[in-house]
Formats: sequence, C-alpha cells, structure tokens
Amino acid sequence: MTASAETTVANPFEQLPQCAANHQALTPLGFIARAALVYPDRTSVIHGARRYTWAQSYDRCRRLASALHRRGVGTGDTVAVMAANTPEIFEAHFGVPMTGAVLNTLNSRLDAPALAFCLRHGDAKVLITDREFAGPIGEALKHLDRDILVIDIDDDQARERGPKLGALDYEALLAEGDPAFAWSPPDDEWRAISLNYTSGTTGDPKGVVYHHRGAYLTAIGNVISWQMPPHPVYLWTLPMFHCNGWCFPWTLAAVAGVSVCQRSFTGESIWQAIGEHRVTHFCGAPIVLNMVANTPADRRPKISHTVQVMTAAAPPPAATLEEMQRQGFRVTHVYGLTETYGPSVVCAWHDEWNELPIEEQAQLKARQGVPYPNLEGLSVRDPLTMAPVPDDGETIGEVMFQGNVVMKGYLKDPMATRVAFGGGWFHSGDLGVRHPDGYVQLRDRSKDIIISGGENISSIEVENILHKHPAVLLAAVVARPDDKWGETPCAFIELKDGFAPSEEEIIAFCRSHTAHFKCPRTVIFGEVPKTSTGKVQKFKLRHQAKEL
Amino acid sequence: MTASAETTVANPFEQLPQCAANHQALTPLGFIARAALVYPDRTSVIHGARRYTWAQSYDRCRRLASALHRRGVGTGDTVAVMAANTPEIFEAHFGVPMTGAVLNTLNSRLDAPALAFCLRHGDAKVLITDREFAGPIGEALKHLDRDILVIDIDDDQARERGPKLGALDYEALLAEGDPAFAWSPPDDEWRAISLNYTSGTTGDPKGVVYHHRGAYLTAIGNVISWQMPPHPVYLWTLPMFHCNGWCFPWTLAAVAGVSVCQRSFTGESIWQAIGEHRVTHFCGAPIVLNMVANTPADRRPKISHTVQVMTAAAPPPAATLEEMQRQGFRVTHVYGLTETYGPSVVCAWHDEWNELPIEEQAQLKARQGVPYPNLEGLSVRDPLTMAPVPDDGETIGEVMFQGNVVMKGYLKDPMATRVAFGGGWFHSGDLGVRHPDGYVQLRDRSKDIIISGGENISSIEVENILHKHPAVLLAAVVARPDDKWGETPCAFIELKDGFAPSEEEIIAFCRSHTAHFKCPRTVIFGEVPKTSTGKVQKFKLRHQAKEL
Repeated sequence: MTASAETTVANPFEQLPQCAANHQALTPLGFIARAALVYPDRTSVIHGARRYTWAQSYDRCRRLASALHRRGVGTGDTVAVMAANTPEIFEAHFGVPMTGAVLNTLNSRLDAPALAFCLRHGDAKVLITDREFAGPIGEALKHLDRDILVIDIDDDQARERGPKLGALDYEALLAEGDPAFAWSPPDDEWRAISLNYTSGTTGDPKGVVYHHRGAYLTAIGNVISWQMPPHPVYLWTLPMFHCNGWCFPWTLAAVAGVSVCQRSFTGESIWQAIGEHRVTHFCGAPIVLNMVANTPADRRPKISHTVQVMTAAAPPPAATLEEMQRQGFRVTHVYGLTETYGPSVVCAWHDEWNELPIEEQAQLKARQGVPYPNLEGLSVRDPLTMAPVPDDGETIGEVMFQGNVVMKGYLKDPMATRVAFGGGWFHSGDLGVRHPDGYVQLRDRSKDIIISGGENISSIEVENILHKHPAVLLAAVVARPDDKWGETPCAFIELKDGFAPSEEEIIAFCRSHTAHFKCPRTVIFGEVPKTSTGKVQKFKLRHQAKEL
Repeated sequence: MTASAETTVANPFEQLPQCAANHQALTPLGFIARAALVYPDRTSVIHGARRYTWAQSYDRCRRLASALHRRGVGTGDTVAVMAANTPEIFEAHFGVPMTGAVLNTLNSRLDAPALAFCLRHGDAKVLITDREFAGPIGEALKHLDRDILVIDIDDDQARERGPKLGALDYEALLAEGDPAFAWSPPDDEWRAISLNYTSGTTGDPKGVVYHHRGAYLTAIGNVISWQMPPHPVYLWTLPMFHCNGWCFPWTLAAVAGVSVCQRSFTGESIWQAIGEHRVTHFCGAPIVLNMVANTPADRRPKISHTVQVMTAAAPPPAATLEEMQRQGFRVTHVYGLTETYGPSVVCAWHDEWNELPIEEQAQLKARQGVPYPNLEGLSVRDPLTMAPVPDDGETIGEVMFQGNVVMKGYLKDPMATRVAFGGGWFHSGDLGVRHPDGYVQLRDRSKDIIISGGENISSIEVENILHKHPAVLLAAVVARPDDKWGETPCAFIELKDGFAPSEEEIIAFCRSHTAHFKCPRTVIFGEVPKTSTGKVQKFKLRHQAKEL
C-alpha cells in the first residue's frame, strides 16, 4: 500500500507544491495570537490582585520574547524558569519559544545539586527565578562554571522573598521588550519547544525534549479528551513546571480560558477559588482530590456548577470518588508520562456506567483506559518478543506508546533515547494488562512488582484494597526482603483524622479481600514521602522497608 | 530567529531521531479505529431501517478497503463515488483512503458531460454509483474511452432505481473483503486523501486535492470551533460529496457521533429527524434554515433540546435567525471554500452579544469572522501590493488564507495552483473588509461587484437590505448593463407564501435603508436558480439580466 519512489513520481496527486499558502509548522504559539485577536478583553490570568486580559498577556509574552531576543536568545538556546504557578511561568510558555529558544521549567522542590545539574546539562543561557527559591538557586548558581543571565521574579504573593540574584527584575525585562515583536513560527514543527527533566529516582534526571508539533497536538487533545468548552476557568494546582503543566498553558490559549494561579494550595484554598472565580476545571493527583473531599463542610462555599477534575498518577479510590461526586465534582482519570507530554491516555467514560454502583464505577474508573484521539498507538506488549498481550485483563506486559505525542528524545543521551524507542515503540516501564474491552490498566512499574515465593504481587492491587478501608487516607505497598519468601509486601499508611486501626486489623481486612500471600506482612503508619507532584516516592519506602 | 544549517548541526535539541515511536503521519483514518475500539456498540450510522454501530462501520470500511485492494486499488489511484447521503459514501471516506487511494465524490446534480469530465480528469479506476443516478452516469460512462470498474449501490430508500451499470453490487464487493484488513496510515501525511471538483461556473471544474494532514486538522477544528460534545447526533443535510461534507465524516468518527442519513430533505423531514433521533447538529445554507424556520407549526415535533446549526454560503438574515432561535436552534456562521476543506473561518460568538437586539445580533453574525484555531493565516489584502487593508471595516481587499487547511493544489493544473498561491497566500477571489475587532466580512466576489456610475456597489449589501423586507424569502442582486450608468443593480426575489409586493414597493423599501444609487432599478420575482448546495447561481442571473 505504500508507494515506491517510482509510482510517486508518476502520481499527479504528489506533484503539487508545498509553500507558505498551504503548509505551516504546527505550533501552539498561534493559539495566543488568536485568543488576543478574538477575545482581547476576556480574562487570561488571575493571580491575587493581578488580572490580565488576553490582549495584555499576548503583549507581555511578545515583550518577553523581544527582550530575550535583544539579549541574544534564539534558536538552540535554553531559557530556564524556576517559579511557582504565577503569571510569569505562564508567559514563559509563549515568550520563550517565540524567540526560537527552548523553555526549561525547573522543579521548584529540587535541591541545589539537582538544579545545578539541570542548568548545566540543559545549557541554560538565561534563568528566570522567583525570589522564594533564592536559597537553592543561589547555591546552584555557585556550582555553575559559566555566565548566565539571571532575572528575578519579585512576587508579592510569595511566602518569603529571598535575596535578588539577578541583573534585573522580570518586569524590568518586559519593559525592555517591544509588544509588537514580530515572532515567527518555527521553520520546522519538529523543533524543540521545551525541556522537562524527569524526577530521576535513580541516577541523574533525564532531559525530555518536546517539539512544537507534539505540544500543538497535546494542547488540542486536552480540549477534546476533556470536552472543554470555550472559556473554562482553570485552577492551577498542577505545577506548570511539571510536563509544562500537561500542556495546559497552550490548551487554555486555544480555548481562551482563564488561568487562576495559586503559588501553593490546600483543600480550603481550592474550595475558595472555586467559590470566588467559579473554577470549572483543575488537575491533580488523587491526594489533591482527597484534600478537596476532606475539607470540612463549613470551609466550603456553596457551588451550583459542576467542577471537572482530571487526575493521574494513581487511580482515585472509590470512597474519594463517591465523596467528590456528591460534592459536585466530575473526575476524569488520565494517564501518561513526562515522555508523553503528560496525559495521553484517558479512561473514556460510557454514560451507561453512571447507573452502576459506585464501587463498580470506581473499578472501571481505576483503569488507565484508551488513547487520546491524538495518540496513534497504545499497546501492552511482551518486551522480549514485542508481541501484544491477549486482551484478557490478566496477562501482564509493558505499556507502550507510539505517535506524535511521544517526546522527541532525551537530550544529549542518544543511547537512552534509542533504548526507550526500541522496536519503534516508546517503552514506558509501566506494567499493565489489556481488558477485553480494550481498556489498559496498570499493574505496576517493573521495579515495584513484589515477588514473594516466586509469585508476582502487584503493589497497586494491594494498595487498591487498602484504600477501601475507611481509616486509610493513603497507602503505598513495597517489597520487604524476606529470608524465606524472598520478598513480602510491606504497607505504609497515612490515616484519616480520628482513626487508629491496629496493624492486625489492617492485615485482617486485606485477607478478607484477597489471597493471603498478597497481604502485607508489615504495616507502618505515618506520613508517606511524596514528590512535588504528589507521587509516592517508593524508592524511599523500599529503602525504609529494608532497614526494618 | 530561524536557524542556519550550521546552528542546526551544533544544536543538541535537533540531534534526536525521528522514528515510528515518536512520529506518525497525521490522518483522520485513525479516528474510526479509535471509535470502534472505545465505543464499539454505539450507533455510528442510521439510514432508514438500517443502523450500524462503530464496530460494524469499521468492519464495513475495512472490508471495502480490502476488496478494493484485492482488485488492485492502491496509492495513486482514484475511486469515484456518485451517491446521495447514504452509509456507502460515509464508508468510502474511510475505506478508500485505507487502500492509499484518493476518494473523488461526485456532485450528484452534475450532467453527463461534466461527470465524464471528472471521471476522465481524475483518472477514476473504480466508480461506486447509486442506481438513482444511473441515467447521467450511464451517459457519462459512454464518453469514457477506457475501462473502469463500476459498483452499484442498490438502496431501497432511493426514489427510483435505474438500471445496474456495474460488475457487482456494493454489498457483494464488501463480502469479498476481509474485515481484519490491516490498513496502514500513509507513509507521508502530505499524501492526497480526496479530490473535490469545484462547481466551475465558468470553464472546466478544477480538481481540488486534499491531503491527510489537512483532513485530520479540519476534522478536529470542527470539534473545537463548534464545541461539539462527544456523541453528537448529526443530520446529513449537507451533501457528503461537497468538500467531503466539510470533513464531518471524519469529525464524527473523532467524537463517535451518529450520522443520520437522508437522501434528500425538506423542512419537514429535518424536523422529523430532530424529533425521532434527537438530532443535535446539522449544517446547511441559509435556504435550508429558511425551510426549517418556515415549516408549519403543526408539522414540527416538540423538542426540549438545543439544536446547533452551522451555516455558510451567505449570512443568515435577521428574521431567519430570530425565528430559528425562538424555535430552539443556535446558529453558527462559518465561511470557507472548497480550497479550504470547507469552513475554516467562524463568526466566533461573544456571550455578551446575546444581550443585543436581534437586529444587531444578526449584523454581528453576518460577518464571516475569525480563523478556526487550526487556520494559521487569514488576511484581507490588496492583491496588487499584498499589503493588508486597514482594520476599518470599509477598505475592500481580497480575502486570503494561509496554513495547513488550505488545499494541496489543483490536480494536473500547476499554473492555476501557482496563481492561486501567489505571494504565499491562497487567493480566495472573495472581496471583503476587516473590522476594527479583527472580524472579516465579505463584500462580494470580484465578479459580483456592481459598478454603477463609477461607484462600487456590493451586491451582498443590497441583498442584506432586501432580506429585511418581510415578504422576501431569498434575494439575489446582480449587475444589469445600462447605457448611462454602465451597470445598475437588478434584484431577483423569491417571495414568502401569501405575499405579493410590487416592484415599486421593494425599491422604496431599499431607498429608505440605503443610498439611492445602490438600490435596485429592476426587480424580478420568481424562483432563483441555485446549485445543489444551495448557492445562488449568479452567472445565470447575470445572463438573464442582460436579456431583459
């Protein structure tokens, strides 16, 4: 079915010119130009007392691009940003790539050595940094053996404002720029738009490179997969530094929505924003959902509209789901990795599932699901033979991705890139199954599987059971070395306020729900260590379990 | 800002591999695979008593592809389809390009010589044709001097079933095919997917070629611009042969919607479908809207939901708009050409405009508007200097398009293609203005402008005034040669039932609304000739006006 070179030449359909009239690089940057053209007076960004319209945001982004351009920033350069969820990092998603440069948003919870690694590895030429993070960033800059232009974000909403590290403030930089700056789309949509370092639980973080084409397609994929109407009011709980906020800065420009910024949040502050700004959409890990669901009733404003919540990283437990639904939220479960521009798989919901008991709904919603319309391939395969596993919901394989919303590659790491793309599929490292209806469900990360007496135990399966216990707020299960069995499951549990079950009670609860060999042998109560994006840090727990 | 070859080589962001894992051709064909995977049991197509699910439709499309492939159809070939809006033409939008071939849907109102021209010029290797059109198609085939495989569509809904012309029936062809046919996306998204002949009011029709990339982007652009929810129920009033039904077959696969087919329609049949199938969306020229709005009340079922209507070709008159809104319809005005995959410009609505008097709403909605999110460039320019006109709502220029939803070119007509793309913009031939808020409004086709005493008169402006008259159902204004003035406006008017105004009354009405020199000097009452898609055929009226 594919044409040989010979038939192409003879084929009159292929003898038509590609030119500016009928071919342009796909880029999400056009969305902000359109939002400013069509809805210049609609609100784009709210941050405390600051409020911008799309005309103003576009103006500020072009000033940023112009000022950076005048200071020599262009194609091939990197601009790093260390910021909370504020207007500046939102603007950087447009202003930086308008110069042709690559945006590298830094994880604001990283320590100085990790930050220094990112700045060095990413060759950042400019760093825009919020004063709240002056401590670790100042340290990191000392480790850099070269010049870098530092710009300070001086935000009066910051909890603390450390020393200024830079040559000038962000607003002074904007003042240098021309609001009429004539930016161009990239000459090739395959050009890099951003650089996102993975959290790197072992070894150095990897620099995941996104391109304009993928960012455009994910931005639009978010609209369709989440059925976003025009002008949604989006609350930034998800950090914008994380996978470019799942590409939502660009999505919000495409639908001319409102970005409600919060530097940090609590369940109460989320409720407050929903009440005050009529927030319609936000994203967050299940732990964020828990915070919202468990906010005391007297701290919640009355709301009359439905709030759409997108969640990832772990399936939402049934109890959380039920409470969220009762309170007016509708939860969409998505799945993806830094390497797939954030979410690219969605548990697409069937209306008839609404009629099922909530427990069954939670079970269906716990599945990661099906590809976004813009993800070309999703498959569960045997990594050895690359054969797809049967659709039986039981045979475990590696979840693999293929298509335009898979990263360009790992920066300066051609071998890691080739390994990740082995056989023409991106190997996620996540283990999962495919159900008879085609929905994919994760079973575990390869390294999270517990092997006890030669049997595989899915830590996720055990965690799902624990989450059904009324006292459990958060549970994480890892392998504990065992002389007899090799490994046994060890559970770490955060309890809800006012509950104090015993270890025996928890184990007995598990035994009433699953095979004995899968039940935890050890239960530890206390706070569970998490990444800045709310992911449980299992490597720390594994270390702890070894020391027990 | 664009990189030289040298900087590209040195730029580590550009040293990452493009492979199957992270790069796939954009094609709308993937949407039906996804619909069949995620929503296998949801209804895809309804046609009389026939009903298919997405699993069945995907099965039928693959059978079609497989059967064509076995009969030697592949990349570089053309498959022509002559059909009413039935499941077969819907399936051809997927099954034909799955083989690598190009789909050429024929205008079912064309006469035999025009059809023969299309079959010959497009090199159709296969023709799938409905028995209702056996007359003109049979004639056309006699004019072809080569073999062509003919397949008959034998639809029991057809008004009349002419002789079978082909080797076999469509269903027999499907029976030859393998429902597990392993189609591939094109090796390049720039490959042709379809061929659409313009109506060609003068000279031979031109063969407009679409590619997979543009079809994908338009399909998704429709979802976002029209804010389509998942599973819309779409009524086929717009012919699928016209610009591939504005790419809606592919859009409906992307959102797993229902296609309600009607071979032909009346206002009453549209109402019936809305009542019976709970139709949520349909497209049609303003004349279709008129048919709907003017359906007697006792022929309309009660509806409790809002029906979204997309209209193009002419602005909806205020009276129609008001009546439609009162009856539960919401009208979106779009604009485009065959060369832009159908609509690529939308009169994006501002919520606050809903508070305005209906007359003002109609005036705002009469504007063609702003680019779809996926149209990169829309501009009104002086075709001589290529300078954009000022945003004053008065200076007339040519409306020009730029981007990925502009055709690949005119088949076998490289010079016409180069002329159309002069200066890197697609020249639409439509004249218009740009308003201070950036919205574009058409003034006229270049050839429709009336020049009277040296003054330009926009025929659209005069028509808009005539449409305000309560007796006028449809008005078209053209130039009539005049010894003294060069040309004067001549109005052709279709009246609503029960009205009989005089020529003088109409002229007086116009004079009370605009400058005297712009008012018609001549008024002719009677039916106005239209194309199959509801466009007024002004060239016929100009001819008639000359003969007066």
